[in-house]
This record gives sequence, C-alpha cells and structure tokens, in this order.
Amino acid sequence: MGKPPEAASSFKPSSQFSLILRVRIVDRPGMLGKLTSVIGKAGGSLGTIALVSSNDQTLLRDIVVNAASEAQAGKVLKAIRRLSFAEVVSVLDQTFLLHRGGKIEVQPTRPIHTREELSMIYTPGVGRVSTAIHERPEAVWDYTIKGNTVAVVTDGSAVLGLGNLGPEAALPVMEGKAVLFKAFAGINAFPICLKTQDAGEIVETVERIAPAFGGVNLEDISAPRCFEIERELRKRLEIPVMHDDQHGTAVVVLAGLLNALRLVGKRLAGVRIVVSGAGAAAVGVSRLLAKAGAGDIIVCDRGGAIYEGRGERMNPAKEWLAQWTNPGRLKGTIGAALKGADVFLGLSAPGSVTPEALKRMARNSVVFAMANPTPEVMPEQVPFARVVATGRSDYPNQINNALAFPGVFKGAMEARSRRITNEMLIAAAKAIAEAVPPASLGPRSIIPSIFDEAVCPAVARAVAEAAGGPRLSRVNGHRASAVAAGGALSGARLS
Amino acid sequence: MGKPPEAASSFKPSSQFSLILRVRIVDRPGMLGKLTSVIGKAGGSLGTIALVSSNDQTLLRDIVVNAASEAQAGKVLKAIRRLSFAEVVSVLDQTFLLHRGGKIEVQPTRPIHTREELSMIYTPGVGRVSTAIHERPEAVWDYTIKGNTVAVVTDGSAVLGLGNLGPEAALPVMEGKAVLFKAFAGINAFPICLKTQDAGEIVETVERIAPAFGGVNLEDISAPRCFEIERELRKRLEIPVMHDDQHGTAVVVLAGLLNALRLVGKRLAGVRIVVSGAGAAAVGVSRLLAKAGAGDIIVCDRGGAIYEGRGERMNPAKEWLAQWTNPGRLKGTIGAALKGADVFLGLSAPGSVTPEALKRMARNSVVFAMANPTPEVMPEQVPFARVVATGRSDYPNQINNALAFPGVFKGAMEARSRRITNEMLIAAAKAIAEAVPPASLGPRSIIPSIFDEAVCPAVARAVAEAAGGPRLSRVNGHRASAVAAGGALSGARLS
Repeated sequence: MGKPPEAASSFKPSSQFSLILRVRIVDRPGMLGKLTSVIGKAGGSLGTIALVSSNDQTLLRDIVVNAASEAQAGKVLKAIRRLSFAEVVSVLDQTFLLHRGGKIEVQPTRPIHTREELSMIYTPGVGRVSTAIHERPEAVWDYTIKGNTVAVVTDGSAVLGLGNLGPEAALPVMEGKAVLFKAFAGINAFPICLKTQDAGEIVETVERIAPAFGGVNLEDISAPRCFEIERELRKRLEIPVMHDDQHGTAVVVLAGLLNALRLVGKRLAGVRIVVSGAGAAAVGVSRLLAKAGAGDIIVCDRGGAIYEGRGERMNPAKEWLAQWTNPGRLKGTIGAALKGADVFLGLSAPGSVTPEALKRMARNSVVFAMANPTPEVMPEQVPFARVVATGRSDYPNQINNALAFPGVFKGAMEARSRRITNEMLIAAAKAIAEAVPPASLGPRSIIPSIFDEAVCPAVARAVAEAAGGPRLSRVNGHRASAVAAGGALSGARLS
Repeated sequence: MGKPPEAASSFKPSSQFSLILRVRIVDRPGMLGKLTSVIGKAGGSLGTIALVSSNDQTLLRDIVVNAASEAQAGKVLKAIRRLSFAEVVSVLDQTFLLHRGGKIEVQPTRPIHTREELSMIYTPGVGRVSTAIHERPEAVWDYTIKGNTVAVVTDGSAVLGLGNLGPEAALPVMEGKAVLFKAFAGINAFPICLKTQDAGEIVETVERIAPAFGGVNLEDISAPRCFEIERELRKRLEIPVMHDDQHGTAVVVLAGLLNALRLVGKRLAGVRIVVSGAGAAAVGVSRLLAKAGAGDIIVCDRGGAIYEGRGERMNPAKEWLAQWTNPGRLKGTIGAALKGADVFLGLSAPGSVTPEALKRMARNSVVFAMANPTPEVMPEQVPFARVVATGRSDYPNQINNALAFPGVFKGAMEARSRRITNEMLIAAAKAIAEAVPPASLGPRSIIPSIFDEAVCPAVARAVAEAAGGPRLSRVNGHRASAVAAGGALSGARLS
C-alpha cells in the first residue's frame, strides 16, 4: 500500500497521537499562554492542563497535546524544547500507555473464597462436569465457556492497512477486537495469532483448537488465501466461521448503501455500482451485494475492470467476480467504469481513484471511500457527491465493522447455528440500516453510531431469526440462570 | 483406573455433591424437624435452610444438602419423596450450577466510553502499536497480553484421574486451572483443548499458536506422550513450558517431603523412597527428587520395581527411571520394596498398595497417598505412619499443585526466562516448605494452605531469583505503570 498520499496532511489532530507532556515552566505571568500558543502554532491541539506541583521559581504541569501524526508530535516537542522558560521533563504517549500489559484479561466469572467453592469449580467436583460432558457431548455448550466464546484468528498477513507485519504485531489488533466483542455483545473473544501463513496449516491448526470455541472470527488474513481458509474451515467445523474483513465489512456497507439509496430514491437492483479493489473486503462486499439483489456491479483492481475472460492478474476469487459481476463485460479503467455510475465503493488504497473520475458519475452519486486509515478520496474532495461515507471516525457516516460482527456472532451462537449464511448477513445489514430512525436519516447520517447500544441486540435478533430462531433454553436460558445463580432454582442437571 | 474401591464409601458428605432442594412442606409443628432427620438418616449433611414463601397450608423452603456421592444424593431424594408431608418441587446441583456458561471470561482491562478511547485501543491508533512491535519485536512483551498470559494446553487424554475423556470434557478442568492462575497469581490463562492426541501434531499446534502467549502449561496429557511433547516444545519455544502433572506435582511433593523429613529427623539423601506409579506425576516427582539429592528411590508400576535391565512394560521414561533410580537393582513387588523404606509416595491408583505392606516400612514412616480423588490408602487405614498426606482437601496435608504452578509461572515470566529449570523448581519447593512457620510445623501441617496468600509471591520470588532475577523494568514495571496509568508519568514509548 505504501505511504499515505498528501491527503494525509489534511488530517486533524486526534487522540491517536495524544501526548501527556510534563513541563517545568518558569513561574511568571504569561508563560503558560506563550507555551500554549507555541504548541498551537506547531499544529498541536490542547487537551487537559493540570498543575502537578510548584516551588518558588517554577510550576510543574501536565499538558495533554493531540497531534495529527507522529511527525507533527515531534514538531510540537521540538518547538517547546526551543523555549528558554520551559523544560520538557517527560513525555507519555497515551496510545502506548493504554496498551501496556495488554488490553484484555481472563477473569473468573465467580469469586472463589472457600475450600467448598474450590472443590466445586476444580478437583474433585469438576470431575463430575467432565464426566457429564463425556457422556453427553452437547453439555459442553451449557457447562463451559464454549457457548459464548469466539476465537479471533489471524496470521498477521494483512494487519489493518499496514500489510504483512506477522502474528506478534497483529496481537494488539486482535486484543482490540476482543475488547469490542465483550463491550458490544458480552462475548468472550481470545486472540489466536498464528506463526504460519500456510493456508493448509492455518486450517488444520484452527480445526485442532476448535473444541473450546463456539465461533471463529478470521481477521487480517490476506487475499486470496483468506477465501480458501474460510471455505475449508466452514466445511470442517460445526461452529460459525466468519472472515470479518470480508463479511463484517459487507454487512455494514450493505446497511449504509440501503439507507443511502433510500435517500436518493434509487433501488439496489437498478443502480450501477463500481467497486475499487479486489481484496478480501471488495470480494466480500461484491458477493453480498449480488446476493442482496444488486444486478450491475463492476469490480476494478489495478488492472482495471474485472470481466469474464480477462487473462491477467486473476485468482479464484476474481474468477468468481468475473463470472457473477460485470454482466456487460465492460473493460478498461476504473475511470471509464465510473462514467454514469450511481455508487462508488472504495475498498482499495488512497489515490486509486481521482475526484475528477468520481465527478463523472450519475446525479445523486453515492461515494463510500473506505480505505483505512486514509480513504481513496477525502470527503472534502468530492463535494458533488450526495452521500459520502468513509471508514474514519472523524467524518460523518463511518462504515465500521464493529456495527456488525458482535451482533452477527451473538445471533449465530444464540441460535446455535453451525453456519453464517448470506441470509443471516443480509438480515444483519437490514437491522443496522433500520437502526437509523427515518426522521434522522440524512446525507450525513446513513449509519448508526457504534455507541448506539440498540444496534447489537437488534442485529443479534435479526441474525438469530434468519438462522431459525434463538434456542433460548440452551444459550440465553443458561446465561440468565448463571447470572441469578444464587437464587434461581431452575434448570440445573442432576444425574 | 476402574471404579473406586470400597474405601470410597468412607467419604464424608462434601460440597462437590451439594444440592439445593426446593421442598413444599405441610405447615404443622415438627415437620421440618422430621424432614431434616430423614435427610440425615439417608446420609445427607444439612447446609443453609431458607424460607422461600408460605401460604395457609404449606411452607416453601430451599434446603442445601451435601452428600458423599451422586448415589447418596439419590438416596436422600428418594427418602424425602417417600414422605407424605413434603414434596420436592425442584432440585439444583450446585456444582453444575457453578459451571453454567463457563467459569472464566475475557474482559477489557480498561473501559471504553468514548470515540477517542476507541481510536486509541482499536483502529487507527492500534496501528501505531502494531508498527512498533513489527519494528522492535521485543515490544510485544510490553504492549500486549503476552507477558502475563499462559496457554493451558490439553488433549484430554488423561483428565484428572478419569482417563481419556477428550478435549471437550477436559475444558471445565482447564477453565478451573485458569481461575486458579488468575486468583493466585494474577496471570491470564486460556484453555487450548486440542482435537488431536498425536504428539507431533500437538507440538506443531502449540508452536503455531505461541505468539500470543508468554508461557505454556501442559495439562492432563497422558504418559508417555507427555514427556516427548514437553521435551520437544521446550526445544522449539522461547517461552517457559511446563507439564504441570509432572513438575507442579513434583514441586509440592518435594516441599511436603522436606518438611516431613525435618519432622522425623531424616535427610533426603539418606532415606529410601518407594514411588507407586510410573505415569507423568511419578516420573516428574522421581526426577525432581533425584535432582534435589535423594539417592535411594525405587519406582514401582504394576510390574513391580523398575530396574535397569527389566524387559517388560518399559518405555523411554521408565528407561530413564531404570537408569537413574534403584541403584541396588531391587526386583519384585512393591510390598518387597516397602520393607524398611522411609517414604511412600503414591502417584498411582486406589488399591495399588495395602495398609499391611505400608506397616512394614521403617519407624517414623512418611506416607503420601496422592491418587485422586481416592487415595491409594485412606489416612485412617495407616495410623502407624508418622506423617500422612493426600491430594484431598478434606484431610490434613493436602498435596495440591495449586501451591506451585501459579508462582512458578509468575516467577519465570517475571524473569522473562526462556526455560523452567530444575533449579527453579527446587527453589519453588523450598519456598513452599518455608511458608510453614517452624512453630506450626507438625505431622498434620507439613504444607501451607492453598489460601495462604503469602505462598504464591514467595514462590514467584524464589523462582525468579533462581532464573537470574526478575526483570522488573520490563514486566513488573509496566504492570505497575499500567495500573497507575492515569497519573504515572514514566516509561511510555514515544517514537
């Protein structure tokens, strides 16, 4: 993907580059004012300013400064260090500070205080539960973590938009994912970062560790291996498997697109959609849109439009795209494909399309520029589009997988579904789209906030129904009675 | 292993067979008294009795009843059901109730409330941490869970004393282990239950999932495969690997034995030790005792004493035992070996030795009967022994691995040790032995309580020192600053 283009310099200061500076300042009137204006001139944005201590001549202060990039944070520091009346004592980077020691932990669900409790949750009492599971294998869903636990599996081959950084570097991302699983859906998720990038070995390893898990979320595995890995795991495992980069993205894109088209008065079946990119996300999105009724999708990679019979830069996933999209066998550049198109979906890299090309789209155009962290085009570059969405939290209409995957897994596991089907994914997309009340729907609000607590339960409900309905007696039921364990007198086994 | 022998009928009622009975009782004076005496006669022991509700004619009560076995619990129920004035409305089994939904969960270490926090712990901020780890691989220890997280790995081939129940049935035990890791040492542990019992595949799978873990605790893997698996993993991984059934047990046995010998005024180098069993625990214990200075150990399996040159029932681990124990090449039954012996260590199965054979040991004999859950002999069968220990919590001197493994891993990980050496294990044993104050040392208290909160830190300290000292600046240091993240201004990276 290379370096982000110049557009990146238009980034605003944000908390991802947030520093806590401890600065000793000469105690004279006006010094703090001078200091803060130097910080502002260097491009830093000020947060909290606290007084730590003081003596006769100096004040010690903690100053939170947000910058737009590491380079800019460096400029801010340099500017302060040039001042005669202030001295930087220490610098803390908030993002790194929040990662110290990891972002998740494994906690007992119930405290153990007494020997009696210990003899029930561990030997000898636990032996009765093991025996019960051995005799009746389905009991593993009731008496272990399996029913509410997902493996977040990666090989580190496509970490965010950063490329093949390896399994250790992927771990903070998988931990973050686990945080979101718990925060949004109450699901336990644990990172499985694999020291192999061989598709066969990945499948085999996940299959071997599957007994403790009720679902598998594949993450940041590069295309085209990710398609094969997912297909094979879905075949071999009896628990839901989903490659989030493909299907989580697809669900949220479909949700946003349904609302965007509602706004501009067009129908999915009638619009021309041009997709930029042919990686995991682009393939997942194109497939789901096709299943949801989109009839005219043209996917473009660096070789231009993908069509049936194209000989170069192909792989099995692109062959599928060639067969099921681009019915008119349009050839040529993405610029050509965009002429008169209704929807642009960027799932590629910054700079892969020009604002000029997007300008030649049909009236009331919909532009989703979702490359991360730098979109294909910045929203301010396409003022002519009616609806613009990105993957960023600092612009309206953030297309964020976190709207989908927690509820999709929750619904699938509640239904004790062995699969995640396209019907379940489409149901999830509709639930997300409907989470925006008609009165709020507008060009800058086609998608709910990820902090909207109603979204995950609505998605889970829709997915479980599409899967045949939640099996309350088994999953919901026992979660409820586990919570009320002290008093609830129902449903525990006595052999 | 088969069914436990008759000795099992001497079991006392315990909380592992604890029922909550909801009973509707006719509201007349004396009825509750009659009911409780029926429960007592059927062998049940009474816990809490609560009034749930009442109407004109009846009272609804919850009655906690502990039984000695599932069979006895059944007898209690049958006896109550025969009564005309009481009706059993529902029965809850507390052990199963405590297992509903699993015993552990994955929790975020810090709450996320705002978009700013989210943009630091997940995209885009997390990308900076991933990049930092990619550039400087050791950073994975500082900014992820790795430095404080252990994989609890099993193939379910030797679940407790119950045999080859498979990975799903092993899961409740591994969850219990994870509870103990957190409760005693603050370590995150996660169950890896493998759907393969092939030694090579187990090694390969653990190696592939190792990136997220700082240690590997092998558990309930049957002998002799466990030896090969552990040896191979220790060779391939750069993190500490320990098969707890072998080495955790060995540490606590050595600790108990050091104190027992102190009591009877004998020295490890001078005593004859007879070990019953040649499985994982027996091999681990014999090896560690030999390393710690025991010169006269005779290990007996079902074929009698193991000696150099024995042709039958051998495997590589027994070959090792033949070479390094039994210097006098004693042959014959365990009964013969026990004549005049000072120490008996039972790590086999109930009934593998008779009280009569133990009676022929030397004066001041030490008997550790550690088969689980039913010991080789019950303590009341060997009143002639000076010190008796078992694996049970309802007798004095419980030899419990939970005294060892949390501190051993904590110490090893704090020292960032790549190995767990015999020196570290012996240091752990001495620390456990010394946790019993000289004034408290007695035939019924040779080992500290697992609820003694001083044990784990003492073990961790001793292990870390034996490993070359804790690397406070890296592990302890960052845990501390993570806890104090809000205010502590030291040590965070700025690139």
